[in-house]
Parts: sequence; structure tokens; C-alpha cells
Amino acid sequence: MSVRTDLALEAREMVQSQAQALDALSGVLAETEHKASLTVTRVKVDEQGSRTLGKPQGEYITVEAPNTLFSDLDLQESVTRCVAEELRHLLGERSGTALVVGLGNRDITADALGPLTVERLLVTRHLKEAMPQLDSMASVCALSPGVLGLTGIETAEIVRGVVERVSPSFVLMIDALAARRMERVNTTVQLSDTGIRPGAGVGNHRLPLDEETLGVPVFSIGVPTVVDAATIASDALESLCRHAPDSFAEFFGKMDEADRHAVLSEVLGGEEQNPFVTPKDMDSRVRRLSVILSEGLSLALQPRLDLSEIRSLTT
Amino acid sequence: MSVRTDLALEAREMVQSQAQALDALSGVLAETEHKASLTVTRVKVDEQGSRTLGKPQGEYITVEAPNTLFSDLDLQESVTRCVAEELRHLLGERSGTALVVGLGNRDITADALGPLTVERLLVTRHLKEAMPQLDSMASVCALSPGVLGLTGIETAEIVRGVVERVSPSFVLMIDALAARRMERVNTTVQLSDTGIRPGAGVGNHRLPLDEETLGVPVFSIGVPTVVDAATIASDALESLCRHAPDSFAEFFGKMDEADRHAVLSEVLGGEEQNPFVTPKDMDSRVRRLSVILSEGLSLALQPRLDLSEIRSLTT
Amino acid sequence: MSVRTDLALEAREMVQSQAQALDALSGVLAETEHKASLTVTRVKVDEQGSRTLGKPQGEYITVEAPNTLFSDLDLQESVTRCVAEELRHLLGERSGTALVVGLGNRDITADALGPLTVERLLVTRHLKEAMPQLDSMASVCALSPGVLGLTGIETAEIVRGVVERVSPSFVLMIDALAARRMERVNTTVQLSDTGIRPGAGVGNHRLPLDEETLGVPVFSIGVPTVVDAATIASDALESLCRHAPDSFAEFFGKMDEADRHAVLSEVLGGEEQNPFVTPKDMDSRVRRLSVILSEGLSLALQPRLDLSEIRSLTT
Amino acid sequence: MSVRTDLALEAREMVQSQAQALDALSGVLAETEHKASLTVTRVKVDEQGSRTLGKPQGEYITVEAPNTLFSDLDLQESVTRCVAEELRHLLGERSGTALVVGLGNRDITADALGPLTVERLLVTRHLKEAMPQLDSMASVCALSPGVLGLTGIETAEIVRGVVERVSPSFVLMIDALAARRMERVNTTVQLSDTGIRPGAGVGNHRLPLDEETLGVPVFSIGVPTVVDAATIASDALESLCRHAPDSFAEFFGKMDEADRHAVLSEVLGGEEQNPFVTPKDMDSRVRRLSVILSEGLSLALQPRLDLSEIRSLTT
Repeated sequence: MSVRTDLALEAREMVQSQAQALDALSGVLAETEHKASLTVTRVKVDEQGSRTLGKPQGEYITVEAPNTLFSDLDLQESVTRCVAEELRHLLGERSGTALVVGLGNRDITADALGPLTVERLLVTRHLKEAMPQLDSMASVCALSPGVLGLTGIETAEIVRGVVERVSPSFVLMIDALAARRMERVNTTVQLSDTGIRPGAGVGNHRLPLDEETLGVPVFSIGVPTVVDAATIASDALESLCRHAPDSFAEFFGKMDEADRHAVLSEVLGGEEQNPFVTPKDMDSRVRRLSVILSEGLSLALQPRLDLSEIRSLTT
Repeated sequence: MSVRTDLALEAREMVQSQAQALDALSGVLAETEHKASLTVTRVKVDEQGSRTLGKPQGEYITVEAPNTLFSDLDLQESVTRCVAEELRHLLGERSGTALVVGLGNRDITADALGPLTVERLLVTRHLKEAMPQLDSMASVCALSPGVLGLTGIETAEIVRGVVERVSPSFVLMIDALAARRMERVNTTVQLSDTGIRPGAGVGNHRLPLDEETLGVPVFSIGVPTVVDAATIASDALESLCRHAPDSFAEFFGKMDEADRHAVLSEVLGGEEQNPFVTPKDMDSRVRRLSVILSEGLSLALQPRLDLSEIRSLTT
Repeated sequence: MSVRTDLALEAREMVQSQAQALDALSGVLAETEHKASLTVTRVKVDEQGSRTLGKPQGEYITVEAPNTLFSDLDLQESVTRCVAEELRHLLGERSGTALVVGLGNRDITADALGPLTVERLLVTRHLKEAMPQLDSMASVCALSPGVLGLTGIETAEIVRGVVERVSPSFVLMIDALAARRMERVNTTVQLSDTGIRPGAGVGNHRLPLDEETLGVPVFSIGVPTVVDAATIASDALESLCRHAPDSFAEFFGKMDEADRHAVLSEVLGGEEQNPFVTPKDMDSRVRRLSVILSEGLSLALQPRLDLSEIRSLTT
Repeated sequence: MSVRTDLALEAREMVQSQAQALDALSGVLAETEHKASLTVTRVKVDEQGSRTLGKPQGEYITVEAPNTLFSDLDLQESVTRCVAEELRHLLGERSGTALVVGLGNRDITADALGPLTVERLLVTRHLKEAMPQLDSMASVCALSPGVLGLTGIETAEIVRGVVERVSPSFVLMIDALAARRMERVNTTVQLSDTGIRPGAGVGNHRLPLDEETLGVPVFSIGVPTVVDAATIASDALESLCRHAPDSFAEFFGKMDEADRHAVLSEVLGGEEQNPFVTPKDMDSRVRRLSVILSEGLSLALQPRLDLSEIRSLTT
């Protein structure tokens, strides 16, 4: 599983496509539901499945929208509502203060989803402290901790320090992800009740952000905004193989994976360029996604408010 | 002292201009030095002076540049070097990790100076942890905690949480200030060895950010970016008085200050508009100031690096 | 009339408040209509009125919203619809290509309304050229010509050059204005069937932008985003006068206007600072206003589309 | 030549690598010069060469910097000076007003180079008109015409309209380009004395921007900011072929190019996604490049000013 994806859905597909025996997937349960034009897939990963997929144990929910998402406001609202419902399902009966953390670098478009979502969120903790009678609202606070390269501090350290002062009931991470397939970029939302591991997301964290390090339950929401360029090239090769004579498939199958990666990396200008593939109008798509996510979150976290109230309060 | 200023220099001028007896200022020592075209004023405030000026005890250093600052790169570099020298003087022999905190809201131009400065800072703590042999660099880390209205968390809570995890030797706050006189806006830098009190700066903090709340020494650097509109109007009245017949000066002197403020507020559209006066090209000036401050800070915090090395490392 | 305003409504109020004889206003007809919580004032200025008010002849329509505008999405939609209706009234039966011009400097928040509105506009001219059968849409094109200081070219020259190539039926200018009263800033939209004269708006044009220079009818839409700081100070003085003893009012009345302006300018840091008064959260208000204007314009220019269709097409 | 590149240097390499007879390249002269760590290649294309390379006749100069460019301020200044020298060489003895046109969409990072460069340029035409005695400065004006999708007007129409009003001696276009190799992205500047053809650059123009359409000589400066994702995948395949057994090379060589492109396109999510490959920190690189280009241009266009004077005038 050298090809990188942050989507459990894709990790499962890859394992399956590698023609492994069904019992290798016995720790991974998946069910798919269609909600109008959206596809919702719920993947449950137990201890055995965690080893197979290389993802932490827990539940992963994927909401997939058609690629007309960015020219269809009604569809955007459906995604908002669906994200809210699935998030409520994951959160269960939890109450108390929610701390929403927007991971990533606001100045790199592909990595800005977390900070932009947090900026638009309905934040209420300070209002409730000042007006305790404001009991129609749940207590929500938020933080954009920045990235290690600009702060010199591990994101996990910053979040843990704030968790210790604020004592939230749970933490909700927002992050930009990497996908394996272009058609999922910007149109897929993944929710999970697991934390975030080092190396996941578009940015890079060295320490995990999960219940063990933070001391409270951690949920995460992410949208893939990029595909690694090496993944694209590798997929292209695999597609071609289906059309190639047996001798090539044989050669390709025998080729050392490290060699293959070295060749692709060289073509892509080397590791330090860190190139990725992304749609050209990513800037406006990421802004739009941050609106969808912030409204979906507020709807899930504030059960007594409807969408139009949330919009008025965050305008 | 109802007219607001964050500059100790101006607070002192106001007390003097109110023609108070000299002994009322016995707790405030000031000395002025001219460094080429810059004016450096050092104001020391003791316990008695603190009550008179309404500012915390400590040392306040003001670097004033001529208003040609924004069309003169050499002058900008002089300010950078002068800020570095004065900051080194305040810091004394302190070593160990510095935590630089950029206060304010990045999305409000007049309040963005702190976050923008922190973005451009030479940050090294994570590099030194990975490469302990990197002993030519001091350990610097940085944080932009956001503002209460967008996070729901008091800035002091966030900073204290991070201080407890990171254990810096001292904290250095960067903030946008309010001044009393337009000619000081964007051309004056104030450094101090005191923390920041609630209500100071362009934004608003309810809890103090000082050694008592954070547990380590706190320094601060600020630049006024705005003047309260009511201050401008009030100053205009006072100026006119000097030209007015005695009867007006008498009337104006007798006028109740609350009445005067009510009249001015009404003219300005009421408290909730929170209007301020600012130069038209503030956007580009604040960006330029953030470069001056970040380079000045890095120069002060990294005694083994010169300005061209710092520029190359932060490009 | 030394105090600056771009609103005909305010120019009329000022003339009236200067207690001029009623016949001085005989060339200025005004009527006011209340549409739910909005106030619509229509001022017609004939040749005589033009001399009195210092504004070009024509019709000026002002839509005033309450200051809750920025926390009330329904109110924002009402303004959008009202702007569309009033603009349709001004345009009359005109058809053919509309050229919308966003005046101002996108990098100065207070001056960015024009360029931001144009960015969000539903633009169709190129689609209709490619698909002539697209007859449900009117032909609309748009331009942000920049400002003289950044282009070295008079805005009127650029627009005239483009008008000659594109041959629109009419031109519609969007501009940020200066008002005289803070309570009108950001909450008032002025529409007119006259062009824009030099010195109007937040920026500065040396040549007029009107039917005479451009060769086609010119309409304009503007929102005040600033008040001159000197205006604020001057208004404060006038308010105080109402409370002052006769001797002061007498002194103030006799005071030479140039002297008064010199005193105020000195207080404000001199002409070159060009300070203005503005609400603190102007950045987000200007973005929101650009959405209101672009949707209002598209609704007026595209009679066969409703608001939800326009939103989907410009998302 | 289905693989897209805007660099004449790469077009020439591709033709050569396709093992065509030398006489096919008889219309293309190239010479390479090393200036410290920069490589300058001058390619002259005559009528015959134009057919071979698919590029307009003229001179193309490429300045290539090592990939340490973004962490080395001295190297950036070398590129600035080299661009200035090569541009002066292309311009020859031309004098009179220069119109600099920044092509592209400022809101799409990869396409923003033109508008950002124009924003920082030293613009003088309006100053010289006001002060004719200002004879130490050449007359320079500038324009960012926007893109067809946002204006509804062909870029060539806008520029021609402005050229007719302003009557410049020549036009200089700035554009973001597509390259074939990642290692050239952001580190290569191409200057030419030819105009820009439809379909070139990151954005898309339907009409050419050249001396024929604009009526005055046209020069252009561009920097590649992206590589087409399909190009990357295709190059990966070709690299692999060198390691593959003969049977694969044979298969690959015989494979229909249209089929190959269809396979790659499918993998990349289809044409409408329009994906491209780009370095992750493109946002800050494009800003830095716009400073290099604007200073290089100003240095070339203002022979009586040195770099420090230009920096002070554009700060």
C-alpha cells in the first residue's frame, strides 16, 4: 500500500483490488446508502482491519457528491445536511463544549480548508460564559493552530495545551486530505471517530492527534483536495497494463516497487518539489467547501438551530 | 484620561498637557535620543507613575520614524535595526526558547499586524529539536491565537495552555495599537517589558496577558494603526479652542465630558459602529510594517545572524 | 458645500440645512417611499438643481437599509431585490449588451467594492457569441480597469477604448463612495442615470466617466464605505454649536472656512495622510455588499432568470 | 507534438528527442550561455522552424535558475538583473511609452503571475503627463485585462481598445506558462519578441495577442507555473520504457496516441477537471516571482534608474 490515500474507502478498494483473500478484509465492514444524488459509505474497521488497511480502528463515513457540486447550490445544501446528520450519528449523545480545530496552512490553497472552515464557524463558548441563560445554544469553540513549519511547535502540543485549559467534551479536527483518484477530489467528505495520524492530510504532523494524546474523544472531518502526482502516474501505468500484452504485465508486476517509485519521482522533479495534482479552480472550490463544512458542523453541533438561523448568525 | 491611547509616550504627554503639577509625574522618567532620523524615547514607569498614567509599571521604548517611512527602504531598514537594538536591551541576558505571539484578527486590516508579523518570522524551535547541533540559532517558536469572537476562547487561555506545553523562557506579544495622533499611526513602534492589559490594542482582550497570568516574563511590541474617531473629533475641538474667544474656551472647559462624548458618539453613528480613523493605504502599510517587525525581531532573537542571512532564511 | 459627499440625498440635506430659501431647491424634486424596512428616496435634479447641489442633472435613487443589515440575511435579500427593481426602472426599455465597470482599487478595502462586485457578476457576452441560440440571457460583459496610480492610464481612457471595441448599449459603473454621515456607511445604495465626475468616489478620477466621454448612456451604482475624517470633525463642531452659548456660534460662524479646514487638517496629520473614518469590520462588510450588488445587478440585467438561478450560475 | 509546452526550449528538445533528421531543425538556431549559476538559451525560429516547432517566428530567450532560487535572495537578484539585460537586448533602441499587460486570473494562484507583476510595476505615464520635465523616467503604463470567463470580452479586444487610446510604442505581455518538466516550473523565465497565440499560457485566449492584432510590436515574458497532469503521466511511461523489455517498448510505440491520451485522461478524472501538477508552496513562489519580474521589467524599461531606486519607488 505505497500509494497514498487518506480515505478509508479508497484504502479498502485498494486492498480488494489487490485480489487479497476475502478473509483479509474480515475486519472491515462496509455498507453503502444512496441519499438522493449522494452516496454514503460507512466503513467499520476493527483491530484486524486496522492492520490490513493501515488506518486506525473506528468508523469512517464517506459522503460522495456528483462532480456537478460546484455549479449546484441545492446539491451543496444537501451535502451540508448530510454531513450534519452523519456527524450527529458519530457524536451520539455527547454534550458539553466542542473544540473544533482547523488543521493546515491558510496560505497554501490546497491546505487551507481547516482554517477557512473554522473562520466561518458559529462559535458560542464565550457568549454562553457571559450569558449563561443562553441555553438554546451548545457551547462551541475553535482554534487554527497553524503548521509546524510556521510555528516551530507540534500541532499536537498546541491543541493539547488548549484542551487542558478549555476542557472540551470532545475535539473535532478539520483537515484537507489526499485522495487516490481525481474524481473524488473536492467532492467527497470523510467523517470519522478516530483521530489523525502523523503523515496524513495535505500537511504533515509528526505526532498523532487522537484520544490518547489529547485526553478527550477526537472526531475528524476531511475533504481530499489533492492527489499525489506519483499516484496519478502509477495509476496511469496500471490502467495501461490492462491494455498491454502479457509480457508487459509480467514485467511490470516483477518490477521492484522502489525502482518504480524512483523512476516516477525523477520524472516529477524529485521529492523536494513535492508536486501534486489538483483542479485548476481549486481556490474557489476550497472556499465553497469551507462554507459547506462550517454550516454542516454548526447544524450538527447546534440541534436547536436550523440552517437559516445558522446562516444569519454567521453572516 | 478618557481619550484612548496605547502609547505610554502619549499618555505622558496628555498628563503633562493637562497642566498637572510636576510631582504628579515623579513616577515617570523619560529620556529622548536621536538616532539619525529616528527618535527613541524611553519612559520608565514606577508604581506611582503607573497610577498616574494608567499603564502597567515597566519600561516603554518608542521608536518614531518620519512620515516618509513608506517610500524610503533605507529608513525602513533603520527602523528594523533600531527595533532589534532596543529589544535586545529590554531582553537583557535572557536565553532559551522565545515564544512570539501575534495578537489580532488577520482578516481585519487594522488588526492584522500581529498575525502577519508572526507569519514572516524566522521560526527555529522544531529545527533545533531535530538537529540539536544547530547551535548557531536561538530557539524561537510562534503562535497566532486568533481573537475571542472567532475562537470563543480568551486569548490568555490559549497562550497559557501553549506556554505550559512549550515552557518558553519568555513571551513576546505583537499587537496593533490605537494612538491619539494621526502622525504617529504606522510610523511609531512601542516596545515594553510589560504585558498587555484588557482593552488595549485594536482588538479586545478581557484577561491580561502578563507575567502573572502566563507565568513567564512577557514583552510586547506594537504599532498604532488607528486613531479613535472620537479622539480625532475631540482633538479638533481642543485645537479650535486655542483660536476661540475666551467665552468659548470657558464653555468648552465647563462642558461635561460625558456630554461631550455623547455628542461626538452620536455624530459618529453610535458605539456599535466602532468607527476609527486610518490612512487610506493602510493595507499595504500594515504588510510593510509586518516585514519591518519580523526582521527586527529575528535580528534581536538571533544574535549570530545578520540581516541578509535572516532575509534569505525567511524568503 | 466644502464637506464632501457623493450622495445626492445628503447634498440636498446639506443645502436645506444651510437654511437656503426654498426656491433655491426648485430644481430638486424628492420623494420618499418605504418598502418594508427599506427607505427609497428618489431625487430628480434639473439644470438649476445641478448648480445648487453641485451634482450632474439626472435621477438619483437611494436605498437605505437599517444598520442590522449585516446580521440579517433576509434583509440583505430585500436590498438585492430592491436594487434590482430600481435599476430596472432607471434602465427602462434598454436592451443589448451591458458593460459593467468596477471602479476602484481591489487592494484597498474601502475602494474594492467595484472590482469585487464585477468578479461575482453573471457574465454572458462570450457565451452568447458562441451559442447565439442562448436567447434566455441578456448579453453582459464586465471590466475592472484598475486605478490611475497603478496603471498610469486614466480610467476614462481605458473604458472608452473598450467601449469602442465592444459597442455596448450602455455602461454601468460600480464605485465605492464617500458619505457625510457614519450611519449611511455600508447600508445605503445610490443608483443614478448620470455618470461619475472627477473627484467623486473613494478613489480619484481626473476625467469624467459619462455619456459625453464614453459615447453611450452611463448609469452608476455606489455604496458609501467611508466618511472623510475632516467631515466627522466638522460635524462634531456643528453639533456642539447647538449646545454652545451664542458667542461661540457667532465666532464659529465668522471663522474663515479655510482656517477651519487648516486647523482640522493639521489635527488629522496633513493632507497626504488622507485619513478617513470607517467601521472596524469593513473588510467583511465590503465583501458582503459586493454579493448584494452583483446579485441585484444580475437580477436587473437578466429579466428571465430568478435569484436562485443567478446564484447557481455564479457559484 | 501532442504534449503541451509553452517553452520554445522544450519544443526544440522534443523535436530533437523524436530523432528527426537534423535538417528538420534547420530553421531553429540555438545558443547557450552560462552567467554564473544561470543558464541563458537563445533560440531563433525562422519560417521553416516555426512550422517544425509550432511556435511563431522570432527570438526566444530562456533564463534558467537552479532550484535553490526560492531560498537564495542573491540568486533572485541575479535573475532580476539577467531578465532586465535580456529584455533590453530584445527591445533594442525602442523608446516611447511601454504598455505592460498582465494576463491571467488573479484569483487562481497558478494563473496570477501576470496581474501580480503588473501591480508591483513602476508605472510613470501619468506622472510624466503631469510633469513633462520628469525626463529621467521612461513612460510606462500597465493593465490587467482579466480573463474571458470573468469579463465576457476577449483579452485581445480589451488590449486593442486600450492600445488605440494610449498609442504605446510597444506592448509587453506577462503570462503564466505551462511547461513539460517539473524542474522548470517556477525557475525558468522565457522572454520573446513574438506575441501570444490562442491556447498558450495557463489561461486560454481565443484570439492571438500579437503585432498583427494589436498594431504595435509585442514582446512577452512568461514563467511556467504548472505541468499538465497528462504530460507527467506520459513522461513517466516513457521513462519506464527505457527500463522495459523490448516487447513493452514495441507495444508502447505502436499504441495509438489518441488511445494513450484517452486512458490517461480517464485516470485523471476527465477533461473537465482540467487537473495540473504544481509544487505545494506555489502561492508564495508566484508572489516572489512577481517581485523578480516586476523589478526586472522596471530595470529594463528605466535605463536611468538602478535597482535600489526602483525598489524605493515601488515600495
